[in-house]
Amino acid sequence: MNSFDPLTHSLNSSLPLFDTMAIVGVGLIGGSVGLAAKKRGIVERIIGIDPDAQALALALERGVIDFGTQSLEEGVREADLILLATPVSVTVSLLPVLLSLAPPGALITDVGSVKSEIVQKGKEVFGERFVGGHPMAGSEKSGVQASTEDLFRGKPWAIVRETEFDASTDPYAQRLAEFVAALSATPVFLDSTLHDKTIATVSHLPHVLAYAFAGSAQKGLPSETLWRLAGSSFRDFTRIAHAEPELWAGILLANRDALLNTLTDFETSLKGLREALEAGDLTTLQEQIEKRRLL
Amino acid sequence: MNSFDPLTHSLNSSLPLFDTMAIVGVGLIGGSVGLAAKKRGIVERIIGIDPDAQALALALERGVIDFGTQSLEEGVREADLILLATPVSVTVSLLPVLLSLAPPGALITDVGSVKSEIVQKGKEVFGERFVGGHPMAGSEKSGVQASTEDLFRGKPWAIVRETEFDASTDPYAQRLAEFVAALSATPVFLDSTLHDKTIATVSHLPHVLAYAFAGSAQKGLPSETLWRLAGSSFRDFTRIAHAEPELWAGILLANRDALLNTLTDFETSLKGLREALEAGDLTTLQEQIEKRRLL
Repeated sequence: MNSFDPLTHSLNSSLPLFDTMAIVGVGLIGGSVGLAAKKRGIVERIIGIDPDAQALALALERGVIDFGTQSLEEGVREADLILLATPVSVTVSLLPVLLSLAPPGALITDVGSVKSEIVQKGKEVFGERFVGGHPMAGSEKSGVQASTEDLFRGKPWAIVRETEFDASTDPYAQRLAEFVAALSATPVFLDSTLHDKTIATVSHLPHVLAYAFAGSAQKGLPSETLWRLAGSSFRDFTRIAHAEPELWAGILLANRDALLNTLTDFETSLKGLREALEAGDLTTLQEQIEKRRLL
Repeated sequence: MNSFDPLTHSLNSSLPLFDTMAIVGVGLIGGSVGLAAKKRGIVERIIGIDPDAQALALALERGVIDFGTQSLEEGVREADLILLATPVSVTVSLLPVLLSLAPPGALITDVGSVKSEIVQKGKEVFGERFVGGHPMAGSEKSGVQASTEDLFRGKPWAIVRETEFDASTDPYAQRLAEFVAALSATPVFLDSTLHDKTIATVSHLPHVLAYAFAGSAQKGLPSETLWRLAGSSFRDFTRIAHAEPELWAGILLANRDALLNTLTDFETSLKGLREALEAGDLTTLQEQIEKRRLL
């Protein structure tokens, strides 16, 4: 993994970075990219593509896109940047369809939260021209009506290929990094296996643990008593457990393999603490805690 | 559990509430009780008792106590309120010693974070005159030098007996509630089994899970990558895992039985989520998550 220096690159690159951006899927993420790109003059023209005519109308009205169409063919015809802001499973199936429609020089990217399958398929279909992306930003709200031009400000935006790569000698990855830096996000370059494993750890596992904790916390205890004696750690855990079940069930399942591996590591770590607790020996327990504070 | 109305009671009680308070153990908690009681005129006079002459000198200098002694006998002789601010194991062994030294009418209480053993011993030795206490407040710092008069402001202060009790017909529990309300804490009445079980859930288990998480999070992952992609849930978990190992090993072991039970409930809840993840079925996983969001 290496880091991108937005300063150097903003000196080298002048706006607009692209002539025509096609956004496939005009929801919260696609809409926010459109708004940010438009307000900052990062692209000359934005085409929105969505099966939902109402979403397109709203996107036009809010100034998220310059032109909307339900036809993928029509929408991507003149694009030099194609952003797939569709659910992971849809993105995977769109890639082969897109091959005959996208102009030869266009950069193709996506915003999916799990990357292995997408970047593998993207490479197979488009070679170097496809570069995976994952903006680490979101909201409890959804849809184009919730989009905001500041959604990505200061947030990491993973730029992902199947295997480790050197962004300084990878023109497509560089172009994407310039684009996300212009959106005020921070590009982070990494391979898809490392990405999916890291996301399993920093985001997916904490959600699973928080749900499990919330599920067990009330066993035999009146909720009123819990809240009366609750401190900050209890509030942190239960806050995370409020994340929307429908959305998170999908996210967790999409990264199932990496998440199950991470969960196994956690269970092993927890087992060690349980054994030290059961043994009842202060020094042993203290050592086990010390060992786990490496971060 | 019933709640205490500080308004009603502040109308009924006039300051000072006690003539002489003896604080046994002049550290962070004992020192902060002393400061708060002194600054607010809650007690007429404060005697500090500690084997550490330097702590007593510092407490005198900071205005935490009016008089310091290393002799338990001398210190408690005239007290009508005796506060044991010693570690749980010390408190348990001090109680029988205190019986022949404490004046007959004195209210005796403590500040230990685990209550079953203490309130059982207190009742055995002193009967109704001993009422357990647990201020839900602390700091990463320790010692009388870290004490502050606002440590308890707005924080719960558990008032605990061995079995369920009605505070309105329990004069000693009422007196203690008046005292902690005057310190700006919120009295919460409950029995020791419920207390220890609740604390295991709201505080001890989150710490165990955070330590286990921190221990597993780095497996095969560069710490730099974790932090680059880290969001709020990762930061919450790792923040809790920074709690001091020596202190927390002692706290967790003191509540070992309740904690192990709570941990078993958590493991069962986590197992259900693991199975739903392994099954790979969206509807099942969503249902399992929904079931756990009751709080």
